[in-house]
Amino acid sequence: MDIATVNALPYEDFVDILGNVVEKCPIITAAVWSGRPFLSLAALEAAISEFIDALPESGKEGILRCHPDLAGRDLQSGSLTRESHEEQAGSGMNALNSGEASRMARLNQEYKERFGFPFVICARMNDKENILRQLSARCQNERAVERACGIEEVKKICHLRLQSIVLTDNKL
Amino acid sequence: MDIATVNALPYEDFVDILGNVVEKCPIITAAVWSGRPFLSLAALEAAISEFIDALPESGKEGILRCHPDLAGRDLQSGSLTRESHEEQAGSGMNALNSGEASRMARLNQEYKERFGFPFVICARMNDKENILRQLSARCQNERAVERACGIEEVKKICHLRLQSIVLTDNKL
Repeated sequence: MDIATVNALPYEDFVDILGNVVEKCPIITAAVWSGRPFLSLAALEAAISEFIDALPESGKEGILRCHPDLAGRDLQSGSLTRESHEEQAGSGMNALNSGEASRMARLNQEYKERFGFPFVICARMNDKENILRQLSARCQNERAVERACGIEEVKKICHLRLQSIVLTDNKL
Repeated sequence: MDIATVNALPYEDFVDILGNVVEKCPIITAAVWSGRPFLSLAALEAAISEFIDALPESGKEGILRCHPDLAGRDLQSGSLTRESHEEQAGSGMNALNSGEASRMARLNQEYKERFGFPFVICARMNDKENILRQLSARCQNERAVERACGIEEVKKICHLRLQSIVLTDNKL
């Protein structure tokens, strides 16, 4: 699908197709539809990014709280979104050995108790060793730093999800 | 569940239980969790309302676009959220005669083409005759008026959904 096709979509199809580029936040996709037509995929991505940046800090935390834990209960119960399942599986989150699994569970819990939102990282850009290392390191951050760090990861995830749906200008 | 129980919920349970008080917008519930503890159900409702009011106009339109049509394709295909299904069924949206159904479809389409978002009304507070009458009348509004009108209906729906989950102070 190229950007001209995306621009021509009624909002219902736009939200059906692109509604999960930010995990469980179709309101963001639905909001930026107001700003079409987009000159390029990069312009659509920028509109999403600007919408997120304009949210109050509680709204940014809200985005993070809509994300599942890595290797958490939603993976185990099979209730991840399709996108999230593919991303977690791709980075080996569904094939942790028991030592890795218990370490991940312990660190996720520590992280959530410290910050009040889950650890978010772009799984497609990291393998399981790197994810565990980053999770451990980021537990030491200040809350505001970590909120900003999580949002940057949300944007990386969004970038890759958009690229899997919409042809980039280079590919046209 | 009383407000003290709600205040004690970790964000994951808070979002699981209250995440659809604004249709398909768990980010809003997840955001206001930052503001707990809430003194009362009314205070929780006010926090949701303030979050919505602080969104840019595109964000308010985004909320409206996360709502299904009344008697629309999601009702017919069985893909409404549980809450929305109960509300639409309660106001007779699943029992329209063929004349009413075609009038509703035509007016919904006219409304969406005019405004770029769907007609939202608190179905629990209206019967099907009143819904059809309001839909027809509201098609004549200005866009900004109608956006505000839709958001007021979102808040009425949220009020009733909250009351079905959390005990009001009077009921304690």
